[in-house]
Amino acid sequence: MPSPTVQLLEPEVIELIVEGKYRELREVLRQLDHADIAEFLSDLIEEQGAAEAAIAYRVLPREDASEVFAHLDSDEQETLIGELGAERAVRVIESLDPDDRAKILDELPVEVTRRIIRRLTPESRRETQAILGYPAESVGRLMTPDYVKIRKAWTVGQAMAQIRRYGKDAETINWIYVVDEHGELVDDIHIRTLLLADPDTPVEELMDGRFITLNAMDDREEAVRLMARHDRSAMPVVDGLGLLIGIVTYDDIADVAEIEATEDIHKLGGLEALDAPYLSTRLVEMLKKRAGWLAGLFMMQLLTIAVMGFFDGALEKAVILALFVPLIVSSGGNTGTQAASLLVRALALDHVEPGDWRKVLGREVVTGLVLGTLLGALGLATVVGCDLVGLAESAYPWRVGFVVGTAVVGIVLWGSIAGSALPLLMQRIGLDPAASSSPLVATIMDVSGLTIYFAVAVVVLRGTLL
Amino acid sequence: MPSPTVQLLEPEVIELIVEGKYRELREVLRQLDHADIAEFLSDLIEEQGAAEAAIAYRVLPREDASEVFAHLDSDEQETLIGELGAERAVRVIESLDPDDRAKILDELPVEVTRRIIRRLTPESRRETQAILGYPAESVGRLMTPDYVKIRKAWTVGQAMAQIRRYGKDAETINWIYVVDEHGELVDDIHIRTLLLADPDTPVEELMDGRFITLNAMDDREEAVRLMARHDRSAMPVVDGLGLLIGIVTYDDIADVAEIEATEDIHKLGGLEALDAPYLSTRLVEMLKKRAGWLAGLFMMQLLTIAVMGFFDGALEKAVILALFVPLIVSSGGNTGTQAASLLVRALALDHVEPGDWRKVLGREVVTGLVLGTLLGALGLATVVGCDLVGLAESAYPWRVGFVVGTAVVGIVLWGSIAGSALPLLMQRIGLDPAASSSPLVATIMDVSGLTIYFAVAVVVLRGTLL
Repeated sequence: MPSPTVQLLEPEVIELIVEGKYRELREVLRQLDHADIAEFLSDLIEEQGAAEAAIAYRVLPREDASEVFAHLDSDEQETLIGELGAERAVRVIESLDPDDRAKILDELPVEVTRRIIRRLTPESRRETQAILGYPAESVGRLMTPDYVKIRKAWTVGQAMAQIRRYGKDAETINWIYVVDEHGELVDDIHIRTLLLADPDTPVEELMDGRFITLNAMDDREEAVRLMARHDRSAMPVVDGLGLLIGIVTYDDIADVAEIEATEDIHKLGGLEALDAPYLSTRLVEMLKKRAGWLAGLFMMQLLTIAVMGFFDGALEKAVILALFVPLIVSSGGNTGTQAASLLVRALALDHVEPGDWRKVLGREVVTGLVLGTLLGALGLATVVGCDLVGLAESAYPWRVGFVVGTAVVGIVLWGSIAGSALPLLMQRIGLDPAASSSPLVATIMDVSGLTIYFAVAVVVLRGTLL
Repeated sequence: MPSPTVQLLEPEVIELIVEGKYRELREVLRQLDHADIAEFLSDLIEEQGAAEAAIAYRVLPREDASEVFAHLDSDEQETLIGELGAERAVRVIESLDPDDRAKILDELPVEVTRRIIRRLTPESRRETQAILGYPAESVGRLMTPDYVKIRKAWTVGQAMAQIRRYGKDAETINWIYVVDEHGELVDDIHIRTLLLADPDTPVEELMDGRFITLNAMDDREEAVRLMARHDRSAMPVVDGLGLLIGIVTYDDIADVAEIEATEDIHKLGGLEALDAPYLSTRLVEMLKKRAGWLAGLFMMQLLTIAVMGFFDGALEKAVILALFVPLIVSSGGNTGTQAASLLVRALALDHVEPGDWRKVLGREVVTGLVLGTLLGALGLATVVGCDLVGLAESAYPWRVGFVVGTAVVGIVLWGSIAGSALPLLMQRIGLDPAASSSPLVATIMDVSGLTIYFAVAVVVLRGTLL
């Protein structure tokens, strides 16, 4: 939500841009914080055009400029970079934190990236390329080399001097990392501990040897898990040899956790996860992400025709059976969707592991039986009730009711089992459990639900309706 | 995932407990970090019993004990508190950070809470009750009073002395809060700025007057949003008068964001959100959360019987229409589920607001038409194909195919519109948009899909099959 201040300022600022009053413009923008300036720029790009936004951006003090840039969406960053011209663009990108820099370079068109990297100072280039060398979605991509490290042989006084010297550029000074003479990480110490200690104390005396590390090749989800688990605002990243090569901070992780949850929700909804916010996703992109699953599910639904075609003799004799088809198969889809959503989230949060399948099965069998009995009773009552009010009459209402009731018990039980088993199975064979989407589960339950329903009907109604 | 260390230690530790070797036990546990000890205790509770876990817990050094306690689930905390006895329980709870303390007291049975609060020291009681006075899910419940505040009239040297004095108990010293003589918040300063400044510099010279605050009565989701937006590891909380009363830190927020995402995923799956992890939720609880929606949706599905009953004349004459019912209605449910999932997440992340409904409608109409045409073509091909292979024969395969194709276009279009409109509508009338669950959308689409299908059939097939 745009803050009220930003909305109030908008006409005023646009006027300043139009009139070329850049000094006043700068003063007005300096009153705002970085996120608000970023939002203001993104409104400008949308409503006035990239050129106006670039003007406003150019007047920002250099330090603010890079912070503001990091707050923009990648689309907006790209637009702005295009408008700024190569010289200025390189300066902006160079002033970013290495992890933000890697992110924007990763998202720009390859040709643009190459051009920009070639112009970076050797130092920036080294940092950026080190980060870009790790696989997508790895911890290496999230980490920053901007942290404070101290030697275990030092005193607290020497450590504090190091912090004063390098702390300005560090992403956090809450945690200070202790390395040995080879650069191997041997401990992390909270700034508090150093602040409170006597300057002459050897750092080694403050060490407790307890520390948790990430490996640069780890999946970024591992970082989310470990940081949540240990309530840390920053974690050190080591390479295969245990050498300290970077840190990951809470803000990168918060983004990752949010992105992962979004991906899971999109997948559960039966589409490929979008990479950008809903309104910023191009329509063609949106269609691609949605059409594949829809078409696939549609083809799977052909099986329902096969099942119903197989039982069409029964249908012709007792059209009343058709009336209950949507009611009955939906109860399976709904139960299955519930179970799948529960398991997908539980797996994502490590509350359940594939090895727990026996426990899960036990719970879902009991749940399915109870819920099935409840819905089955409703089903029986429905059929008999519909007969009484003349909505769906047949010669054998109680028998048809028994068919519906029994089928619902079976279908709900099977929905609980199948819906919970699918995500576990996907995880086991290395797929994303979130692909067990509601539409997929519903489709599986449509096919198996119809089979159960007609099979029960054929057995129970033989000699009466059939 | 239990770390390998914990699993290896388990038999050894159990032996130490059984043999009463408490000193060795303490030594072994001290090697582990808090999260691992917590996990170990939770395994103990499950596999050995609460008494054994309480023994292991009692030998922990006091400082570790409270950290470990904060890592346990609320169920496990309750179990442990029950086992420890009132005296010890009070000591444990008193040693927790105020926000963690409020959380556990909030979750214990009311009678136990009252008993414990009465035994807390006056100081702890005041802090706890202050936090407990705010509404559930408010920022006031998350905040901690453990932060460092300084006066704007001080020098940097005085500020550093204050940090050394109160920093030990503060939840963060990354940010130091500046208040005026009335206690009103006037700025926040990063510890870095203070560390790098000359001790004689007045604090006022370092102030830039830019700071972002939360109000104690704000919804906690507001805190999630603002902290993500401003990349802050801690944010100050003020009361209605602007007086500084606490801070909220990133770890509380990370928990909230995770909980909110879980709630949304559960609701989207068509059940009430669980309060505890899947495997720790009691079965009765699980059934309650799932049965309500299932039964409600089942009753809504009665409308499908009414629709099909209304068209049963057509069904009797052309049983072939029944064969395509699951295929056709599912395409509406799937499209609607996609749209609803997209909108629910977009609303949760503030990527879309209810005021954007025109833009959303525009996108979904286009999307629905394109996807509908695609699936409609598949539908036509399906009917004609099924006729050719003899799976579903009729006298007028192309006409039936036209009915199916046209109905699918309409249903998919309507699914895109209804699925995206439902979450927006729910938000507008003050309900949780996540209640637009896949099963609810599917049910709505079952009813409207059937109506569209049979209406098209009656018009197109009049004079031929009907």
